[in-house]
Parts: sequence; structure tokens; C-alpha cells
Amino acid sequence: MKRIAIDMDEVMADTVGHCLNLYKSDFDITLSPDQLHGRRLWDVVASEHWDHVRDYFEREEFFAGISIMPGSQDVLRELTNEYEVFVATAAMEVPCSFSAKFEWLQRHFPFIPTSHIVFCGDKSIIAADYLIDDNVRQLSRFGGEGIIFTAPHNVGEQRFRRVNSWEDVRALFLGVEAQTRNP
Amino acid sequence: MKRIAIDMDEVMADTVGHCLNLYKSDFDITLSPDQLHGRRLWDVVASEHWDHVRDYFEREEFFAGISIMPGSQDVLRELTNEYEVFVATAAMEVPCSFSAKFEWLQRHFPFIPTSHIVFCGDKSIIAADYLIDDNVRQLSRFGGEGIIFTAPHNVGEQRFRRVNSWEDVRALFLGVEAQTRNP
Repeated sequence: MKRIAIDMDEVMADTVGHCLNLYKSDFDITLSPDQLHGRRLWDVVASEHWDHVRDYFEREEFFAGISIMPGSQDVLRELTNEYEVFVATAAMEVPCSFSAKFEWLQRHFPFIPTSHIVFCGDKSIIAADYLIDDNVRQLSRFGGEGIIFTAPHNVGEQRFRRVNSWEDVRALFLGVEAQTRNP
Repeated sequence: MKRIAIDMDEVMADTVGHCLNLYKSDFDITLSPDQLHGRRLWDVVASEHWDHVRDYFEREEFFAGISIMPGSQDVLRELTNEYEVFVATAAMEVPCSFSAKFEWLQRHFPFIPTSHIVFCGDKSIIAADYLIDDNVRQLSRFGGEGIIFTAPHNVGEQRFRRVNSWEDVRALFLGVEAQTRNP
């Protein structure tokens, strides 16, 4: 059985979306997906708000409020029938997130055993056939095949097979076309 | 540069020793290493105390009090000059330990970058050339060469190259005999 490792933020979890919601609520400034195209969060948030936004990630409750990415639950459940599925998240960058990330996964993806959750830093440590990730640096270091999950900041990247959605993940790994299943 | 993954409990951290100290303090019962020979903690602790001892692991402060294994700091520091060193600990079994384990590593092994710390469950996910671990189940699933670090419960195991101490680790990986360095 082949093994797929899945990144959490921006792949399973709409972390940036949650940030933008908080930012709108705090400053009444709406940042659209169009504005993020080809850019990182820090490129579009006003520099005088950087510290404020950075503080979001220091709050444990921040992670509990993050929405799941559309389709991720259904497709991940299907993938577990045909692949070994591991979650690999770069949690070491935000140590205050450990418990909240673990609880979030338990709540939204209870069918993934805790033994298949990995908190790491450098994803070159992940032994898997595939890594689905939005982060180009992590994909570059990974030893298997990196599959890039589209996020606004990575749209210019050409080195990896690309999936734009969980429907694309389903089509790529389960050979099921999105339009067949969702006529 | 080859990569070595190192288990934490019973290899870097004297977790069982800390348990036995607490047990002695709570019940005035001394359990010696001889009594543990070839057995697990649960084989030597009276069954009416199992819940009490199990509760040790549910307390976050338990992990802060654990001693480091003799020689581990010096040898690990030396290993980082010639190998990529990662710490791989099965923290998912004890989610309350995340922060305490991270802080313990930061305090005692500050020369290991946080990007090289991995909290996992099943160590078959670890991509490394070697895994030094006391746990036979984890060593069996690991894809590289497993090196067994002697602990009372694993003394009967014959399938892996064995190290009895950090001096043995130094000799095996750095080709330096213990007696030469510590005349």
C-alpha cells in the first residue's frame, strides 16, 4: 500500500482564510483571494499590522477556529481505503499550536489514527511516496514525489504536479474525475 | 551526510528512572534495575498501583523532571558534526506531553534545531539511515537500520545491532573507543 503524507495548513485547514477573517474583524479591511494571488499574507497585510497578525499564531484558540478545506474530509476518508495516509505538519515552528492542532485533527478527521499524525519541522524526515503540500521549500526537500496544493503564494511554481482542490486529489489518486462524481 | 534519528524516552531521557523515583517517594517501594531485567514497568509495579503510575504520564510537569541519560548530551553534540541528527519521539501516545517534551529538548539539547524534532506515532514514517531506539516494535517498522539501545525490557532481543550506552553510540558512529576518550 503506497503512503501519502498530507500537510495540514492550507491543505486540510484554511489557516490563511481564518487569518483574513480575524483581520477583517479587527481592522474592517477585506483582503480578497485576488489580492493574495502570487503573494504571501505578509505582502498584503499593512506593515503596521504585522505584529498584530503574527500574534494570532501565538494564541492557542486561533487553531481551534480554523475551517476545514472543502472536500478534504470526504476525499481523505476515501484515500484511507487505498493508501496509508499520514498527516505531516510543520508544527515545530509554532510550539503553542501542538495541542490545538492535535485536537483539531481529532475533531475533524477522527478516522486518521493518532499514530499517523506527525509534528515536524523539516519534511525531508517524512518517509512516504507522496507529499501533498502548499509549501515549495518543504516539497523540494521531501524524498518522494511532491504534489503541490495550490495556494495563492505558490501559483507561479512549476516544478511539481499540481492539484487545485481536493477534487483534483481524488482524481489524481483515486482515478475518479470530479465531474463524474459531482455531475 | 548520513542521518540518525534518536528516540527520546529511555535513550535521551531516563523516563523510567524518573517513574521509579516517584514510585519510591509515593509508596516507599524501591524497584531496582535488576528487578526490571527482561520486564516492563507494568510487570514490576503492583497492579493496584497501575492507575496511580499511569497518572504520572498525564501530568505535564512529569516530563520536566526527567533526567538526561548519561553521556547523551556530549555524544549527541559530537554526532551533529558528522551526521544529520533528528529526535523522533512517539509523543502522539501522550498528547499532554507535547509542550513539556519540546521544552525539555530545548533546555537540555539546545544545539538540536527545532526543525529536527519530530513528534510522531508510528516510526515507519521516519526517513533516516539509522534509528536508535529502545522500542522493538518501532525498530521493526523503521525503514533504515535500527540500532537497539539497551533498556531492561529489551535485553532478550537479538535482531538489531545493540548499544548499551552513549559511549557505545560514540564508538559505533564516531569510531572512537570509550576507553580512549575516558581513560
